[in-house]
Amino acid sequence: MEQVAWISVLAEGYAVTLAGGGFRASPSTVLLEEPGRRVLADPGADGKSLLSALRERGLSPSDIDLIFVTHGHLDHLLNLRLFPDAEVCDGSFLYRGDEAIPYGRFLPDTEIEVLPTPGHAPDHASLLVPSGKETWLVAGDLFWWRDGAVPRTDLPSLLDLEDELATDPEALRRSRIEALRRATVVIPGHGPPFRPEGRPRMVTF
Amino acid sequence: MEQVAWISVLAEGYAVTLAGGGFRASPSTVLLEEPGRRVLADPGADGKSLLSALRERGLSPSDIDLIFVTHGHLDHLLNLRLFPDAEVCDGSFLYRGDEAIPYGRFLPDTEIEVLPTPGHAPDHASLLVPSGKETWLVAGDLFWWRDGAVPRTDLPSLLDLEDELATDPEALRRSRIEALRRATVVIPGHGPPFRPEGRPRMVTF
Repeated sequence: MEQVAWISVLAEGYAVTLAGGGFRASPSTVLLEEPGRRVLADPGADGKSLLSALRERGLSPSDIDLIFVTHGHLDHLLNLRLFPDAEVCDGSFLYRGDEAIPYGRFLPDTEIEVLPTPGHAPDHASLLVPSGKETWLVAGDLFWWRDGAVPRTDLPSLLDLEDELATDPEALRRSRIEALRRATVVIPGHGPPFRPEGRPRMVTF
Repeated sequence: MEQVAWISVLAEGYAVTLAGGGFRASPSTVLLEEPGRRVLADPGADGKSLLSALRERGLSPSDIDLIFVTHGHLDHLLNLRLFPDAEVCDGSFLYRGDEAIPYGRFLPDTEIEVLPTPGHAPDHASLLVPSGKETWLVAGDLFWWRDGAVPRTDLPSLLDLEDELATDPEALRRSRIEALRRATVVIPGHGPPFRPEGRPRMVTF
C-alpha cells in the first residue's frame, strides 16, 4: 500500500498518578498530513506543549482542518479549545455545530481508515494509517501505560495489558486482536510508540 | 433547604434524526449562578444560540467560571471551544490543563451536589440544585427524548424510557431511581423540563 499521510507524533502521551487521587495526563497527539488536508488526532490537554510542537513545524491552529478524537475522555479533548475553526469527528460522525453526519470507513476527505475499537470506552475508535509497507495505528487508549510502567510489547503482554478504566474488558481484548492483526507500529494513548513483537493469527470467534 | 443557585435553562435540548443516519442535536444548557460563581452545565454544540442566550442575560463567555459536562459525548461539549478560559469538570475531576484534581461531592466552590448517574455512559453524572423547597436535577442524558416524541413523565414511563445509546441499561435504571427519589424538577438532556409524577419509594437492592 502506498504512503497516504505523513505521520508526526507531536506529543508523546503520559499519565502520572498524583498524591490525593488525581492525575496528570495528556495523550499522544498525532499530526496526519495528506496533500491539502491536515488532521490532528487526540489534541489532548497540554495546550502549551501542543502549540509549541505545531510552531516548530511552522504551523498554527488555523492550519488544522480536522480533529479526530478516539473517545470522549476530557484529557483527550480539552485542547479542542485551541482550534475554534477545525472540524471535529469521532469514529462515527463528523460534527458541524449541532449537526452530526455519518461518514463511513475513512476519515472525511482522507485515505485514513477508522477502526472501531470499543472496550476502553464504548465508542472508542482508532486510526490505521498506511505508511510505505507499514501500517501505523493511532491507538488512543486501546493501549496505554502510566509513567513508571515498563511497556512490554510482546503479543501476550499487549493482549493482557490491564486497563483499570476499561468499560468492557472482553470487547477491549477483541479490539486489540483486530488492531494488532493490522498494525506494524502502534502509537498508544499514553506511552512511547512501539512495534508489536508478533501478530495475532486469524482468530475465529 | 435554602436556594443556593439561580437556575436558568439557556437552551432547551433537542435531538432530531436526519435522513442518511445523521442527527442534529444539542443538549439542555443550564446556567447556575451563585454569588461570585457562574457554572454552565453541558455547553452543547449550537454555538450561535448559546452566545445569544448569554448575551440576553448581559453575559459573555468570559463571565463563566466553570463548565460541567455530564458525559463525554461530543454534542454535549463541542461548545467548550467558546470558553477558552473557563475551568472544566466532569463528575469526578476538575481539569486544569493536563491536571485532573478529584473534588468530592459538590462542584468546586459551590453548594451544587454532583450525583453519579452511570448507564447512558459509564461516567455520566448529574447535578442536584436546591431551589427553595424544591430540588432541580440537571439530568443530562439520564432522560432524553427525540423531537417528535411525547415526553411521558409518570414514574413507570420515566423508569422504562428507552435509551438506545445506553451502555448499561440496568445501571441506567438504578441511576434514574436514585435521581427521581431526590428531584422535584428535571431538566433532561434533550426535551423540555418536567415535574415527575410520583417518586420512587425507598428501594432495597
